[in-house]
Amino acid sequence: MNQKYVYFFQQEKADGSKEMKDILGGKGANLAEMAGAGLPVPPGFTISSEVCNMFIQSGRKVPKEVEKKVQDHLKKLEKVTGQELGSEENPLLVSVRSGAKFSMPGMMDTILNLGLNDQTVEGLAKKSQDRRFALDCYRRFIQMFGDVVLKVPKKKFGETLKNKKKEDQVEYDYQLSEKALEDIISQYKEIISQESDRNFPQDVNKQLFMAIDAVFESWNNPRAVTYRRLNHIPGDLGTAVNVQQMVFGNIGEKSGTGVGFTRNPSTGEQELYGEYLLNAQGEDVVAGVRTPSSLQSLKDDIPEVYEQLQEITDRLEEHYQDIQDFEFTIQEGKLYMLQTRNGKRTGPAAVKIAVDMVEEGLIDEKKALLLVEPQALDQLLHPVFDTKEKEKQNKLAQGLAASPGAATGQIVFNADDAVSWKDKGRTVILVREETSPDDIHGMSASQGILTATGGMTSHAAVVGRQMGKPSVVGCGDLRLNEEQKTFTVHSKTFKEGDWISIEGNSGEVLSGKIKTMPSEIIQVIREEKKPEESPVYQYFSKLLSWADKERKLGVRANSDTPEDARMAFSFGAQGIGLTRTEHMFFERERLPYIKKMILSESEEDRRKALDKLLPFQKEDFYELFKEMKGNPVTIRTLDPPLHEFLPKKEDLMVRITELKNSDNPEQKKIQELQKLLARVRELSEFNPMLGHRGCRLGISYPEIIEMQARAILEAASQLKKEGGEVLPEIMVPLVGTVHELTNQKEIIHKVAQEVMEKNQVQFNYSVGTMIEVPRAALTADKIAGEAEFFSFGTNDLTQTTYGISRDDGVAFINHYLTSGIWEVNPFQTVDEDGVGELMKLAVEKGRSTQPKLKVGICGVQGGDPRSIYFCHKLGLNYVSCSAYQIPIARLAAARIALEEKSGSSD
Amino acid sequence: MNQKYVYFFQQEKADGSKEMKDILGGKGANLAEMAGAGLPVPPGFTISSEVCNMFIQSGRKVPKEVEKKVQDHLKKLEKVTGQELGSEENPLLVSVRSGAKFSMPGMMDTILNLGLNDQTVEGLAKKSQDRRFALDCYRRFIQMFGDVVLKVPKKKFGETLKNKKKEDQVEYDYQLSEKALEDIISQYKEIISQESDRNFPQDVNKQLFMAIDAVFESWNNPRAVTYRRLNHIPGDLGTAVNVQQMVFGNIGEKSGTGVGFTRNPSTGEQELYGEYLLNAQGEDVVAGVRTPSSLQSLKDDIPEVYEQLQEITDRLEEHYQDIQDFEFTIQEGKLYMLQTRNGKRTGPAAVKIAVDMVEEGLIDEKKALLLVEPQALDQLLHPVFDTKEKEKQNKLAQGLAASPGAATGQIVFNADDAVSWKDKGRTVILVREETSPDDIHGMSASQGILTATGGMTSHAAVVGRQMGKPSVVGCGDLRLNEEQKTFTVHSKTFKEGDWISIEGNSGEVLSGKIKTMPSEIIQVIREEKKPEESPVYQYFSKLLSWADKERKLGVRANSDTPEDARMAFSFGAQGIGLTRTEHMFFERERLPYIKKMILSESEEDRRKALDKLLPFQKEDFYELFKEMKGNPVTIRTLDPPLHEFLPKKEDLMVRITELKNSDNPEQKKIQELQKLLARVRELSEFNPMLGHRGCRLGISYPEIIEMQARAILEAASQLKKEGGEVLPEIMVPLVGTVHELTNQKEIIHKVAQEVMEKNQVQFNYSVGTMIEVPRAALTADKIAGEAEFFSFGTNDLTQTTYGISRDDGVAFINHYLTSGIWEVNPFQTVDEDGVGELMKLAVEKGRSTQPKLKVGICGVQGGDPRSIYFCHKLGLNYVSCSAYQIPIARLAAARIALEEKSGSSD
Repeated sequence: MNQKYVYFFQQEKADGSKEMKDILGGKGANLAEMAGAGLPVPPGFTISSEVCNMFIQSGRKVPKEVEKKVQDHLKKLEKVTGQELGSEENPLLVSVRSGAKFSMPGMMDTILNLGLNDQTVEGLAKKSQDRRFALDCYRRFIQMFGDVVLKVPKKKFGETLKNKKKEDQVEYDYQLSEKALEDIISQYKEIISQESDRNFPQDVNKQLFMAIDAVFESWNNPRAVTYRRLNHIPGDLGTAVNVQQMVFGNIGEKSGTGVGFTRNPSTGEQELYGEYLLNAQGEDVVAGVRTPSSLQSLKDDIPEVYEQLQEITDRLEEHYQDIQDFEFTIQEGKLYMLQTRNGKRTGPAAVKIAVDMVEEGLIDEKKALLLVEPQALDQLLHPVFDTKEKEKQNKLAQGLAASPGAATGQIVFNADDAVSWKDKGRTVILVREETSPDDIHGMSASQGILTATGGMTSHAAVVGRQMGKPSVVGCGDLRLNEEQKTFTVHSKTFKEGDWISIEGNSGEVLSGKIKTMPSEIIQVIREEKKPEESPVYQYFSKLLSWADKERKLGVRANSDTPEDARMAFSFGAQGIGLTRTEHMFFERERLPYIKKMILSESEEDRRKALDKLLPFQKEDFYELFKEMKGNPVTIRTLDPPLHEFLPKKEDLMVRITELKNSDNPEQKKIQELQKLLARVRELSEFNPMLGHRGCRLGISYPEIIEMQARAILEAASQLKKEGGEVLPEIMVPLVGTVHELTNQKEIIHKVAQEVMEKNQVQFNYSVGTMIEVPRAALTADKIAGEAEFFSFGTNDLTQTTYGISRDDGVAFINHYLTSGIWEVNPFQTVDEDGVGELMKLAVEKGRSTQPKLKVGICGVQGGDPRSIYFCHKLGLNYVSCSAYQIPIARLAAARIALEEKSGSSD
Repeated sequence: MNQKYVYFFQQEKADGSKEMKDILGGKGANLAEMAGAGLPVPPGFTISSEVCNMFIQSGRKVPKEVEKKVQDHLKKLEKVTGQELGSEENPLLVSVRSGAKFSMPGMMDTILNLGLNDQTVEGLAKKSQDRRFALDCYRRFIQMFGDVVLKVPKKKFGETLKNKKKEDQVEYDYQLSEKALEDIISQYKEIISQESDRNFPQDVNKQLFMAIDAVFESWNNPRAVTYRRLNHIPGDLGTAVNVQQMVFGNIGEKSGTGVGFTRNPSTGEQELYGEYLLNAQGEDVVAGVRTPSSLQSLKDDIPEVYEQLQEITDRLEEHYQDIQDFEFTIQEGKLYMLQTRNGKRTGPAAVKIAVDMVEEGLIDEKKALLLVEPQALDQLLHPVFDTKEKEKQNKLAQGLAASPGAATGQIVFNADDAVSWKDKGRTVILVREETSPDDIHGMSASQGILTATGGMTSHAAVVGRQMGKPSVVGCGDLRLNEEQKTFTVHSKTFKEGDWISIEGNSGEVLSGKIKTMPSEIIQVIREEKKPEESPVYQYFSKLLSWADKERKLGVRANSDTPEDARMAFSFGAQGIGLTRTEHMFFERERLPYIKKMILSESEEDRRKALDKLLPFQKEDFYELFKEMKGNPVTIRTLDPPLHEFLPKKEDLMVRITELKNSDNPEQKKIQELQKLLARVRELSEFNPMLGHRGCRLGISYPEIIEMQARAILEAASQLKKEGGEVLPEIMVPLVGTVHELTNQKEIIHKVAQEVMEKNQVQFNYSVGTMIEVPRAALTADKIAGEAEFFSFGTNDLTQTTYGISRDDGVAFINHYLTSGIWEVNPFQTVDEDGVGELMKLAVEKGRSTQPKLKVGICGVQGGDPRSIYFCHKLGLNYVSCSAYQIPIARLAAARIALEEKSGSSD
């Protein structure tokens, strides 16, 4: 056993590097990397996390061997700094900090100013020529040491300090006199003696090892254990310990401390961005007692330091190839970097920075793609609140984040009001118990939609996403009174015309009007703005054009309407992966025929009603084919159970009861409603999701699928004859056994032959299936014998694999996520262990029968970057997502292809 | 290519045997086997089914090579019989019959009396000394040949025959004179010439080959193709052709024909059982013109033939080791066996025969087990209708076969009436729209239960099965008027007090009173009869004791009540595999507390309500433990969503509307109901099966599972302290991710520690989980890290794997089964390709983590023999089923173990 265990770092020289997080922890690896890159980092050493495990296993003792190594490294540190731990002349002070592989902010302990005792404090006073400063450091050290190492309750120190300030009639700590600090120090020592039954150690070596032990101990403190459990961080990683020379920003006006970004993290502009305080320590910036200055004014305050900073931050970007978020301290005119990390940035900034860096020659296009998180693009596509204005408003309630974007407007309670208010030039938010197809015109007229009930697949949510309207649904705290046109939330009442704001990304509902900014990119896509007039659009499209060169996955859109398809095409969709035909049925002029079809008692009557629907459907499909210009268009045959198109049982029952109890009951009307109710009852289901839907409908009523196939193929014929190109893919939903697909396929092929013969036209089309129940995945080898393509319907597949309805899951999903039972929400991100395992099986089995089988995904997870990574790894041909997610998918697909190439994807 | 293709058979000598069904077909193999066993079979030969495929592939021609072989075999047949095809002196007549590997009754063609023409008919006349007989044979042959070979419409012949009878003023065919027959023959020939454009062939060789061709052709007739599709018989098997010497039972009084069983197939008594007609052909028996005599009287009619028959049937049983169902013909005092096969028998007969045969030394115990189909035992456990009486009654309607057994009684329409009628000594059938927990007393008082709505898991179905009450549910044709106490079915109206009968095995509803016989075995189990007084019980328990020696699978019961557990134990249950605690909640005195618990707004109130439930639950479990005498008792924690315990939304809405519209609205009542409605709405779910239930409840409301764990463990402690033995297995439902199980397990273990410490008692208990959603199976390796046992909940697992709710599936499942989309109903028999694949994965993954993991099944499929076979092959430890299915499961488990040993299980 002759391992290293302790790693030294100093400017230009470091034993470690940023790749060594496993044993140095995040902080230690970062310090080593910075030092190694020649940045002015205060020197120090890192005790590896392996020692933490040894410490725990050996009954909380640092092994002798390691103790020896620490002593050696301490000597080296003294040599490098020219200071000495415990020296009364030039005392070395150090910080002792934890740092695990994964960041656990605030969970473990830190000790600063270690090395001070009754003697060295005077050495520090002499050297800094500031005895008050030295005493304050000592006071702080005793307090931290007492708390962290000796487990003395914090509040004991707090009370003492408070009393002293009261006694001396001062308000702030920094106003305390030397005398007062001396008193406090002596009282602190007293507290320690009483509370811990031991004296505050004057032996600085003892201080150091006690502190190291305490940091290791803190790995297993209850807070840390809980944090790890919730964040799924293994308990056996252990923490490293960083011992580093202290530098002080509070020794006079040539000293200071600050934080900054190498570029503007909000806009991406290339400028040093941040703030600093002279003669101050980090805590002072946080405490907010003094107002920090903008980094730009450092140029005037200490020009030579600003120059150093400029030079160093350039090196930072060059070294890290990314925007950096850094902390620094200036000690008597000398700049020290304490920390640097990749800077968080807004979506627009991310895109600009990545593209700028390529143009500056700092990075190449591939690296640029890796600098932008796919999800960050979403910020460029929806209106957003002005952050400052948003902070001023109260959050009223939390609903489900159904459709992204920020919206502000005056409250209206029904669709007609929404339209008439809009016509008067007002902006409105439509607030409903839940929406129905009758509300479409009102939804279209509103800035955003808010409903009290309904889940992520409710009408409001689905239509909201389709229209790109910010929507918050299932906001259970809302108590609506639609008649009186008011709602109450937590005993606050709002009426028609009051202003509210909703944020569809977060599900937040806020009171009042909040300024929103439109998305420039959407303006360009909608041709409301010219591309050349929008730099944001330029950046955006440049980045995505790079992405298209790298990605292997195709990207298609889930689109039900020509408008939506057009937008998707502009966003770069290479086809339509899912058209839900039922949404077409809900339109006002069609619904009566649908109802008639459902209420038919004979096949003949059903066919008559279907004949009326045929021209509508044909027109729908014709437009879609036209918009997609010969790219594949996947159309799913009717999926939802028929009762979805009829009124609700309970509403009919109430209506009948009302009529019966009225003074003059209309018997005819009652009978009519009773007949309708009987049919509704007949069709009503205990679990509609698991009921008579999908291909089960097409098998029970072949005339329905026949009509749909005819509409699709007639539309294709027409366009083809007009000289257009078409590529219809007819997709059969909810197949669980291959015979279901065979049944539907036979009908479709028969219709196709008829239609092509009749129209004297030939074109390619294919028939495939959704893989959306576990059995389809499990028997995919058989199904692939009949299917020309697979498309994973991961919404239903997730619901059936878990046995959880997404809508009903609202009752417990949140608790599952916060309590750590679920790591991620499988309804947003593919659950790789369960659903993903089925997908893997389906791809393998499917391609064992048909090696070139085309496989895609059209569930909501198809637009989620993590899921897109997974789909790439499974070898899918394409992902299909909503129009707004297409840019995200293009970027995500490129990134996983790049990561796979570089071997970092696992 | 020098294959055999044609196989000869004659008494004592046969080229084939019963194992050769693949090429000889069922009939050919059987004839070969009988002949080989020395039975008097008319000689003949079989052309193999390979030839059928050659015939089809070569454009409907029998290859020359085969034609040659047929000629050779024909020669041999002539030699063996001493007759000659086409001879005018001693003509050989043959039958030409199809016979495929799998029986396809009536689907393909048969030709009798081949070899007759204008000359040979006179030879036959001479030989039989009965010219009328010969002419009749000829007439029949021309008709069959015309129909089958020459495709002349049957009705043409029929009309001619009818006209002739009219003309001659006779009623029956056999009354036709020789002259009339001559006329008919000549008219038949005329018809053939006209209809088929060819003459009836006088060349007997041509007759033979045309007939062979026609039989091969018939393999692909539309009826046969459809039959194969529906029965999943591959189309490339082909049919064999059997050419066999004709024998005649209609040549005088020493001739005859008959059918019989070697034992009584209804009771199992050891006696020749059957009927015969002298001077008759098989068709005459079927035509029912003359009444056949019982086989016993053959002893007097032709004693020497009876002796032959007695001797032959003994040999049959010895050879086939099973009861035989045979056909024979007597031609002038000589007995010929035409067919024999294992006889179908009733359940009681099957058991008696198997046990008798062991005692007679004919077979061993293992073979006896293989002679009884497990499902046959069901007939011994339920009351059955007297078959003859049942035939007299009209079938009114068809419902779902929810709980087996026959019941007859007077109609009542509510539970209270059921009780009061019963108290007056009447037997009643309770007819309801659907039942609820409030009907329990009425259900208990009834002979059987009939409901108009609800599926196989409806309240009526579940409780019916539990009580062992014959039940038919979801009988959609019933239109109930509960107020007027009538129901109408297909425009026939029944009122209170009318008699009806229901058969829970088939779902049939019949009008009128039908005599039922009670099950003797149940009488013994219920201690209403002594075992030694019931021979049926003796046979039954002897057979099952043999089964127990062979089986490897354990058999447990699904029991929720002590009564049920006691019965299960008497049936041989080795423990309880599933106790559903929620059914205990539905009892009248407990429901209020459940409601209170659900309506609680704070954890504190919830705990108070739960405290009230604890003693009830403890008592329930205590009794179960006691009944099971130390065997394992698996108790599932609360599973259904809470709203199941509350009134329905629509009923509340209607009630509120009624109150509001009444003349004097009670505001307080309305408000109260509105509050209840609000909570019901809050809890209501779109898809309750996929909602807030199972362990999700226990995680949201830990106090519920805590109470249940306490009740279980307190009950166990009490019994243990009283000196009893206990082995509780606590089962967590609906786990989809291991963390759910961990969460619930921690609570249970904590309670266990408390309870054991408090009671100063120690006992073993375990915590395991249901595997009932696909994700549990897919991640079984992880779950097995926490679970002490698995139990497959194949009801929910099937529903989620298919994405089909069993109750809602009624809308299409029947169509799926009849149209062949499904081969079997996966809700009755484990779907091996899908659900079974998941089970296999779960067993493999689970045991990869925990090699000795105990795995069982507790879904309804656990009582289904085919599924039990599958469970055995998967290596499960036990199956759990309802008390009534335990004997079936014991036998099924023994049979698969035996079949596996003999290598015939795949």
